[in-house]
Order: sequence, then structure tokens, then C-alpha cells
Amino acid sequence: MKWRGFLKGFTPAGVLALLLPAIVLAQEEMVDPMAAITQMTGDLKIAADTVWTLLTAFLVFFMNLGFAMVESGLCRSKNCVNILSKNFIVFAISSIAFWVLGWGLMFGDGNGLFGLNGLWFVGGADNSPATGGAYDGVYSSIAWTGVPIWAKFFFQLVFAGTAATIVSGAVAERVKFLSFIIFSFILVGIMYPITGHWIWGGGWLAQKGFWDFAGSTVVHSVGGWAALAGAILLGPRIGKYAPDGSVRPIPGHNMTAATLGVFVLWFGWFGFNPGSTMAAVWSDIGRIAVTTNSAAAAATLSATIAAWLLLGKPDLSMILNGCLAGLVAITAPCAFVSVGSSVIIGLVAGVLVVFAVLFFDKVRVDDPVGALSVHLVNGVWGTLAVGLFGQASILSNTVKDGLFFGGGWSPVMTQLTGVVTVGAFTLVVAALAWLVIKYTIGIRVSAEEESEGLDIGEHGNEAYPDFQVATRGALHSR
Amino acid sequence: MKWRGFLKGFTPAGVLALLLPAIVLAQEEMVDPMAAITQMTGDLKIAADTVWTLLTAFLVFFMNLGFAMVESGLCRSKNCVNILSKNFIVFAISSIAFWVLGWGLMFGDGNGLFGLNGLWFVGGADNSPATGGAYDGVYSSIAWTGVPIWAKFFFQLVFAGTAATIVSGAVAERVKFLSFIIFSFILVGIMYPITGHWIWGGGWLAQKGFWDFAGSTVVHSVGGWAALAGAILLGPRIGKYAPDGSVRPIPGHNMTAATLGVFVLWFGWFGFNPGSTMAAVWSDIGRIAVTTNSAAAAATLSATIAAWLLLGKPDLSMILNGCLAGLVAITAPCAFVSVGSSVIIGLVAGVLVVFAVLFFDKVRVDDPVGALSVHLVNGVWGTLAVGLFGQASILSNTVKDGLFFGGGWSPVMTQLTGVVTVGAFTLVVAALAWLVIKYTIGIRVSAEEESEGLDIGEHGNEAYPDFQVATRGALHSR
Amino acid sequence: MKWRGFLKGFTPAGVLALLLPAIVLAQEEMVDPMAAITQMTGDLKIAADTVWTLLTAFLVFFMNLGFAMVESGLCRSKNCVNILSKNFIVFAISSIAFWVLGWGLMFGDGNGLFGLNGLWFVGGADNSPATGGAYDGVYSSIAWTGVPIWAKFFFQLVFAGTAATIVSGAVAERVKFLSFIIFSFILVGIMYPITGHWIWGGGWLAQKGFWDFAGSTVVHSVGGWAALAGAILLGPRIGKYAPDGSVRPIPGHNMTAATLGVFVLWFGWFGFNPGSTMAAVWSDIGRIAVTTNSAAAAATLSATIAAWLLLGKPDLSMILNGCLAGLVAITAPCAFVSVGSSVIIGLVAGVLVVFAVLFFDKVRVDDPVGALSVHLVNGVWGTLAVGLFGQASILSNTVKDGLFFGGGWSPVMTQLTGVVTVGAFTLVVAALAWLVIKYTIGIRVSAEEESEGLDIGEHGNEAYPDFQVATRGALHSR
Repeated sequence: MKWRGFLKGFTPAGVLALLLPAIVLAQEEMVDPMAAITQMTGDLKIAADTVWTLLTAFLVFFMNLGFAMVESGLCRSKNCVNILSKNFIVFAISSIAFWVLGWGLMFGDGNGLFGLNGLWFVGGADNSPATGGAYDGVYSSIAWTGVPIWAKFFFQLVFAGTAATIVSGAVAERVKFLSFIIFSFILVGIMYPITGHWIWGGGWLAQKGFWDFAGSTVVHSVGGWAALAGAILLGPRIGKYAPDGSVRPIPGHNMTAATLGVFVLWFGWFGFNPGSTMAAVWSDIGRIAVTTNSAAAAATLSATIAAWLLLGKPDLSMILNGCLAGLVAITAPCAFVSVGSSVIIGLVAGVLVVFAVLFFDKVRVDDPVGALSVHLVNGVWGTLAVGLFGQASILSNTVKDGLFFGGGWSPVMTQLTGVVTVGAFTLVVAALAWLVIKYTIGIRVSAEEESEGLDIGEHGNEAYPDFQVATRGALHSR
Repeated sequence: MKWRGFLKGFTPAGVLALLLPAIVLAQEEMVDPMAAITQMTGDLKIAADTVWTLLTAFLVFFMNLGFAMVESGLCRSKNCVNILSKNFIVFAISSIAFWVLGWGLMFGDGNGLFGLNGLWFVGGADNSPATGGAYDGVYSSIAWTGVPIWAKFFFQLVFAGTAATIVSGAVAERVKFLSFIIFSFILVGIMYPITGHWIWGGGWLAQKGFWDFAGSTVVHSVGGWAALAGAILLGPRIGKYAPDGSVRPIPGHNMTAATLGVFVLWFGWFGFNPGSTMAAVWSDIGRIAVTTNSAAAAATLSATIAAWLLLGKPDLSMILNGCLAGLVAITAPCAFVSVGSSVIIGLVAGVLVVFAVLFFDKVRVDDPVGALSVHLVNGVWGTLAVGLFGQASILSNTVKDGLFFGGGWSPVMTQLTGVVTVGAFTLVVAALAWLVIKYTIGIRVSAEEESEGLDIGEHGNEAYPDFQVATRGALHSR
Repeated sequence: MKWRGFLKGFTPAGVLALLLPAIVLAQEEMVDPMAAITQMTGDLKIAADTVWTLLTAFLVFFMNLGFAMVESGLCRSKNCVNILSKNFIVFAISSIAFWVLGWGLMFGDGNGLFGLNGLWFVGGADNSPATGGAYDGVYSSIAWTGVPIWAKFFFQLVFAGTAATIVSGAVAERVKFLSFIIFSFILVGIMYPITGHWIWGGGWLAQKGFWDFAGSTVVHSVGGWAALAGAILLGPRIGKYAPDGSVRPIPGHNMTAATLGVFVLWFGWFGFNPGSTMAAVWSDIGRIAVTTNSAAAAATLSATIAAWLLLGKPDLSMILNGCLAGLVAITAPCAFVSVGSSVIIGLVAGVLVVFAVLFFDKVRVDDPVGALSVHLVNGVWGTLAVGLFGQASILSNTVKDGLFFGGGWSPVMTQLTGVVTVGAFTLVVAALAWLVIKYTIGIRVSAEEESEGLDIGEHGNEAYPDFQVATRGALHSR
């Protein structure tokens, strides 16, 4: 590790020979060597940006595994195959829905509400990786990044898929497989892209000065609001809330899987946040990695302490959800705040998630994995945090100074506007979508199937057929 | 995310200072600054290509985990330690075998059938990263990519390892541990490199105009043919096929692990296919990521539907194998076809794999994890798809237009030639290898050990000693 | 794969247009286009180095999952939640501790023993990514790499976290949760940075010519010594060593998780070793990936053979620990030795780890997961291997030729000096830290809690509540 890589890179003499063909080629085609070297440098810039964008997108894709493991691990073994199937197929659905229509609605040139050009199959005119004034196409809102169109599409697709997979956890253990698939298609093909257009597609919130760097609102709270609509309309799982008002805890069947899932999500978030530069911007990506990590670490610790004080012992599922809460909260502000601020944002997130879990049980919204407490509550918190902790000096031409840095209440109110309007739109449209599905094919499995487990009912499979389940057939612990 | 990374990269004034030492150094050593900057640019090009090649190779390495989890998850718990051990040690074996001999046979200069120069220990003359006419060494067939020799070796090694690990699944639950190790050494050290030389080593198929971008044939169907030979010679597991002709399903013991495995494989395939450029080619790697993902998504959906219609319910193992089928099928054509074509290739693959699973059971070839249906059948399909869907305009100087794009039957026949000859060679040589092992140390464990489980018999371990197995000792479900 | 990526990169004519804004900008601000292109090239160099450093750091972060799975998988299910919790929270603790103080102590300018400047919150003056003579700040010992400060911090943080997580395994199944947390904070905030300063922070060992490329000593043996102090002071688990002198094997409860963990660690090590260049040095990173992999492969095979011969069968936990032993051993020498030497280093490591496991049981130091045999014993072996197998010609300006390459005993003795002094310091200080904790809040749970399992006692959770544990409540197998 002790070694000066910088000069080393330039010494091997043989390198020059490698470039001769390119230079000769350049000299034949162009006026002077300066133009040739300029083009080579430009190519390298695009290559570096594309490599960064794709590799971080792969990490975000990998978060699908994280969600699958967290959600199935925190539910009962009798529903494990069903949850795995939902979390697996949802990215396939998202891939098709975002290609067919979602991308165009979100990034196509249009009005302040949605895209109108190049709607179908990513088929509009486009000369990416040209940027800025040199860009000539219909997806101009994302022409700030100089990578090719399919790299842009893929990066945005994995974000869209994340929103859909968030819903999965909150409706787990009672939703019909087919109904979930249909809802996911609508979410990724239509709903997510519309609010996404408002913020990242050059729409009305972007014009108002609303900022969400990597998607606390665009992705997480949108997934959260859609999940809230589903959880309310589905109602709680049988046996969760007793008639006497008491809440029965239903422990997850596999904490190894749940912990694995959160590690994978933490790992994937290093694609989610630093990758949202969509360019290899050396001046920012390292700092964003550190703010992301620091918020996650702080939230893990504060959730642990909060759970220890409130519940008597440091419950592992609270530790894990604490980490996720910190990651969701830092997603919007990660590029706009200092490392110190990120620690504070995380500390708050970790406490918030513990109280939110208790709150949703108090109001009897049954959320088996804590998805609302993590993604909705902390998606809102993180979005507001931009207005509180943002500093104009950290990333030029972006946010104004936030409340705690002398910017007054104005940035907070702008952020709040986005939180409220995106939330209202998504909650209403998601409720409508769930209702249409409810009154056509239905959204909830039969009480008998729910008791027996959705694995047999929906898939004809068992997750662990070789093992003796503790109280096979009994409702409360299988 | 809304932020113009492009110009930003050039503004910080302090950067110039950083380069002063390099420029001063350059000025002392060279004639003019133009030469210095040209060399720096050349160095950066090699660096970007090497970073891309290595990071994608790491992703492909990670697929070993995917195979281990899919294969052990889809088998019974009593054989779990054995399958994990096979899948773990096989990459160690591959690493040694490909270093000792495989690399040289595959990429060494030789005749149309195999390499003859630089055979042992990657020890031949080589001045990589020099390319094209500047290359001076014995591995000229891979001198099209400008990365250093060990980066080339490592990238090719992880592909060779994949072929070996495919075999593992088809022979699971009955093959002897040592026999599998010996076969793997032969496969990676000798068989795989020979057919690989035909296609990627400048051999006779390459000269004929056969194209396989990332290895539907080179890796997947070769693994599949070797597995077919093993599965036939081993015979089915005890109890799989009843004397009355009925087929007894033997469900996998851990669907959490199997699902995790397929997610890991999907993730790793973003190294497998886009990485096969072996250079940070911004104009192609994004599109290849999207064709890869679209085929996987489409195949997941079509396999789900096919299983739903044929079997009554959407079986999770069919969903998972559908995804893998799509990934295998798109591997050969990923760089040569449009995104729309990739969706069609995937849709076909997902249906094919469901019928193939039923077919192999009908002909009583026992393949516990569906490896033949995934890798062999869809390796063939994907290779032919190049001749059907390929478009000359997508990647210049590669394929001709395929049948569906006006190219007639000729490209299909060329692809078919490769499929048949590689299949015939591998099937025959693999059968010979398995037979030699059979008549020396044997290939199948005793019936008693098979019933008891290979974990105790081969390793003296249990995978889950703390858990109550459902019917411990009983043959049919443990 | 057959395709000439090199020239391709330069042909698209549209690229030039992309650069026009930058060039125009450059012409307005600067004297001549040469300065502009020089600055662009410098920016690209920093970008490539930062991308490499961050992506490999993400891989190293991911090793936390590997450790969590290996350690929990190799222990009993009744302690699974506790081990998962320890391994999860330890990186959160490390993130805070290394930010608050660790980084400054390790890399701050100071004396030969520890840093004195810029101690707190990474807050010292720093003009990274400036390097060498252009660097102007208080962290000059790490100014050899031209990446920004937060990229440096993040890369070093994930290494510090690794040292802490090593301890976790050796003290498993009996240590108090809070006591482990406190020890981890001390380790990462104070102890690890001090010995790290000696070697990577420009301290006295660095000045003596001691070399440890990626941390066989800095990370692994330091973690190992701290673990040894803990394991001795805690004493063995109840029932491990019978009064008659016999050793009772306590098998791990989940070999699927353990195997998954080692695959993840192997994967992550491609970040650990090649990433330690902290720059995209094309001339070295491919070779380092191959030496790393070859040592792992060779050690896997030699441990398998050793276990087969000594124990009668190829035990899976020995296969897995063999791989890790090879990875730990090659960590110090990976950049300084040939591929052939790396195979030999790995072969020795695989044998060493098998004997070490038997040895620690003989002297009754109870190490549930083999952490001492892997990280301590092979950390020492790998560090010495630099003095045996190092070749001055492989990486210029680093090691001298080792004993086997004509360098005599001197390099071995220098390496031994580091091994002994770092070991003595860490063992003594760790023992003091453990003792202070012991006599304040205690370090070991009650015998009753230990028998019942730490999951209920420390966390109030069960890892797998749906499953029937084989002999629930019985000490010996749960």
C-alpha cells in the first residue's frame, strides 16, 4: 500500500508504441494531432463515466437480493416462497414496464407533469452521450450526464425497480401473487415515472428548487406511500391485532437471511448514492460514500440504543431497520451535506424508525417488515433534511443553504412542498389502483390460504421441506 | 442526480499543479510535451480497460457463490455439505488447471484445433498490453484487447471456472467427491480450452465466421454437454424414477438459498456479458447490460406463465430457472442484437426451459437442478439466435445480418456447425473421461451412502446439525 | 469477445463535439489548448484512481457480510442472533471510531509511534488529491496516492473495520454484547491506528524497511492478537474441553451460511489486495488479482488434502478455513511475489491452518471459528513470506530480494521485527483493555445464559423461531 502509483503510471516506455496506430489514424483523418488527442481524451471521459455509472447500477440491481432476504427473513417460513417469488419477479416486471413506457414518461420532453416525447420503448431521438447544448434529442432533462442512452436507461431502471420492491414487504403474507404483479407494473410503468418527472425529469418541482439527490422521495417515499395504500386496503394479517387491543409480535423465521439482506442493501447503497452522480466525478463520489456510510452507522447505533432503552434489549430487527433508516434518510441529502451533518441525520433516523414501528402498530397498520417506518418515514425525513442541513458550498449550483446554515425556512418549505404533493399524488393513485384490482381479481388470499401459508396456496412449494417446522399447521408460529 | 457532471470535471484549477511533476518528468525524458500527453492518455486508456476487465471478472468470480447456492438449495439437506464442497473446491481446481495448461491450449498460437506455444504456466513470450500489429508474443488471438497479460488470464479463468461448476449440478447427490475433482481438472485443463481455442483462440470455427460473444457455446453448452455425459453415465438418483414409469419430484431443501443464488448469478452476469468487451468501450457496454437484463426479465416472465399454465401454479424453481435460461440464451448474441430482439430471445428461452425440464424427466436423465435445461438447451438456443437476430450494424466487423434481418440461412448454418461440432467433441471426450474414472476409482457412491446422504459419507459433516430433519433417515424427503 | 476494442474507441466522429464546451471554456480561462488538455488528462487520472479505490473499498466493506456468515454459520443456532448482531454493529462502531480519532492517529503527521496532527474527525489541513511535493497538509504519509481525502478515508476505514470483525469470531458464544462493542471502539479508535502508523503511517517500521502490502500484519494479525487476548481471558465455552482432557467438537449450525461467507470473503479480497494500490495502476492490479486468487486456490487444495489425511475425510470447515488462510497469507506479499511463489505461499498456508486448529485445541484456547488459525498464524506467515519470496524486480522501489531470491536473511529478520513488535504491543494493550472491561462491566455472560443461548439472553430474539431445534434446551447440540 505504501507506494507511489502516480508517477509509476507514466514510466513504462512501451506505452507510446500502443498509441501509434491511433495517432496515425488520427493524422490521416484529421487536421492535427491536437484534435486527435482531444478526441481520445473525450472518449476516455465518456468511458470513465460509463464504467462508473454501470458498475454502480449493478450494485443497485443487487439490492433486489437484499430486499428479498430482508423481507422473507422477517416473515414466517410458511410464506417464504411467496415472498421470494414476489421479490424476484418484481424486477422482471419493472424491467419490462420501465422499458415500454416508464422511461419515456419520466425523462421524455413534455410539460411540468409528465413526459410526452419518446414515450415508447426508449425510442425517441437521442444523441447521447452528447451533453448540454450539444445534446439533440427528446430526453433533454437527463442530458446533463455524458453517458450513452442505454447506460442512462439501465441506471434509472434499477432505481425504478427499487420503488416497486419496497411495496412488497408491507403487503407480505396476505397479498395475491398476481395482484401484486399487476400493481407493480402500474407503479413502475406509470406512477413512479410521473412523480419522478416532477423532480428528475425537469418538471415543476425541479423548477421550484426542490432537491433530492438520490431519491429519498423519488424512490423511497414513493414506494412507501404506495405500500401504505396497499397495507391499509389489505388490512392486517389474521391474528396480528387481538380484539382486546393487544399486539401480537410475529417474529421473522430467518434472522440470518434478514441480516444478510441488510448487509447487501448497505453494500448496494454505495451504488445508489455515489452512483447518482452518473459520472466519475472524483471531487464528490468519495465524500458521498462517506456521508452515506456515516449516516448508516450512526442510525444503527441510535436505533440500537433506542431499542435497548424502550424494549429492554437490543433487538436485532431494530438494529437492522435502524441501518436502513439511516440509509434512506441520507439518500436525498448525501451530496449536499457535510460528514458531520450526515451523522446527525443518521442519529435522528435511527430513533425515528424505532418509534415509527411502534406507531404503526398502535394505529393498526400491519407492516410485517417495517417498510413504512424505514422507507416512508425516513424518506420524508431525509427529504426535509436537505432543507435543514444543506450547504450551498458543498456542491455548486445545487441547493441553497439550509435552515441550520443560515438559509431560513424557505428551503425547508420547498422540500415540504415536494413531500406533500408527491405523497398525496402517490397515495391517491395507488389507492385507486389497489381498489380497481380489488374489485376485479381481488387483492387478498382467502383466510384459509393465509393460515395454511401462501407457499402452498400460491405456488405449490415449500421453502424448507426437509425441516421440521416447530408447530406445523399452527397459526401463530409457523 | 440533477447536476451537470461534465463541465464540473474540468473546472478545479488546482488540478494542473498535480500534473506538474509528470510533465516535468516527461519534458526531461522526451522530445516534446505532445509526446508526454500522448503517453499519459495511452496509459489512461489501458488503466480504464484494465479496471473494467478486472471488476467485471470479479463479478464473474462471484457467480461461483450463485451456483453453489442454487445447486445446494435445489437438492436435499443430507447432501448439502457435499454440494457446497464441490462447488467451492471446483474453482480452486480450475484456477490451478487453467494456469498450468488450459490458458496455453486455448490462447497459445497453434493450429486450428489447439494452442501449441506458451502452453505451460502462462509462460510464453508476451508484450501485453500491446495490441494488433504492436503485439509481439505467442498469445496473439487475444491481442485485440489492450490489457496486461494477468488481467487477460484472470478474466478468462473465471469463465473457465464457470464451465466446470455447471457440471456440478447435474451430477449432484450421487457423484464421488474425488471423481468430480478429477473430472473438473480434465475439463478445465484440456477439454474446455480446446473447443475454446476453436472459437475464441483463433481456431477453425472463428475462421469460419462463427460468433459467440460471451460464451453460450464456449462456456454454457460445453458445461452442459460435459454434464449430460456425467448424468447419463451415473444414472438417476435412487427413487427418482419408479418402476411404474412415474417420476417422483424431489424438492430442494432451501428455496431461500436457491433464490439468493439466482440473484447472485443475475448480478454476476453483468460482468459476464458486458465485461466480455474486455475494454471500457462506452459505445457498447451499456447496451449489452440492457440486452442481458431484458432477456433475463422476459424469460422470467415467460417461464412463470408457462409453468402456471402447464403445472397449475407458478413454481418458484421454474421462475428461477427461467431467469437463468434467459441469461444463458442472451450470452452469445448480447452484443449483436437489439434490445427488442433480446426480449424475444428471452421469451423463447423461458418457455424452452420449462419444456426441457419435463423432457429430461421423460427420457429419464436425472438432472437434480435443471442444469441441462438451462445451460445446454439454452446455450444451443442462444448460439443459434446469433444467426437469427444478429444485425451487422450493431457491432461493426462482427456478425452478418441474421435470418430475421435479411441474411438468409447461411449465418444460422454457420452457428449450427459450431453447436454440433463443439457438442459432439465435448460429449465424446467427456464420456471417455467419465468412463476412465469410472473404471479406475469409480464415479458413484454406494447405494447405502446415497440413502444416508453424501454429507456424512464423503465429509463426515452435517449441514444443519442443530435442526430436526423432517423424517430423519427416511429416503424420500430428507 | 472477439473484437478489437482499442481502435473502436477512437472512431465515432461525434465525440469531438462533446468536448467543444470544455475546450472553449479552457481557451477562455487559460493560455493555450495544451494546458487545457493537460488539465483534462489530469482530471481523468484522478477520476480513474478514485473509481478504482472506491469500488474496491465497496468490495472490502462487503467482507463484513462474509465474516458475519462464516462466524454465525460455524457457531450454534442458539447464539446466531448474537453473532449476527455483533458482526453487524461492529462496522457501525468502527465507522464512528475511525472518523473520530483512528484516522488521525494512523495517518496524521507525528512521530514514529503515532500521529499527532489532524487527530480529530479527519479535520486536519489537506489538499488531496495533490501528491508528493505538491501535497500540503498533515496526512503526508498517505499522500503517495492521488485521490481525494474522503476516498482515502473510506478505503482505510473498511480495512480498520476488518480488524475489528476478526475478533468477533474468537470470542463468540460467550462474550457480553456491550463489552464487545466497547472493545471494538478501543481497537479501531486507538490500538489498530497506532500499529498501523508504524507501518502505513510512515512510522518506525516503515522507516526500517518493513513491508506489508495489504495488511497481513496491519489488519489480520493485529485482529488475531486482539482476539487471542480475548479468547484467553474469556476462557473456553462450557463443555468444550472435558475434564479428562478430551476435546468435544461443537459443529457449526449452518454450513450453507458459512460457505456463502467464505465465497463473499474471497470476492471481497479482490478489493482488499488489488485495491491497495489505491490507484488504477494497470501494470500491477491484474497480477495482484492473480497472486491473490492463486494462493487462495492452492491453500484450499492443500488444506483439503491435509484434512483428508489427518482426519480421514475432507471436512468442509477445513476446506473453507484453508481458503481464508491462503488469502490472509498472500495479503502482505501479493504485490511483491510471482504467481508461482503465490502458489507455494498458499500451499503452506493451507497446511498451517489445519495444524493450527489442532494446536489451539491442544493448548485449550477455544476459538469457535478458527479465527486465530486463519488470521493470526497466517498473518504472521504471510508477513514473513515477504522476506522469503519477495523480488525487487516485481514492484520497483519496494522490497529487496527475499531469502529464496538471493537476499539473505536480512529481509526475513526485518519482517520478523515487525511481527514481534506489533504482536507484543497488540497482545499487551488488548489484554489490558479486556481486563479493564472485565473488572468494570464484565466480559462473559452467565453460565446459565451461555447454556440457554445468548440470543434470548442478550437480545430477546430467536434466529429461527419456526424450526424445531434438534434437542432444544440440551447443551451439546443446540
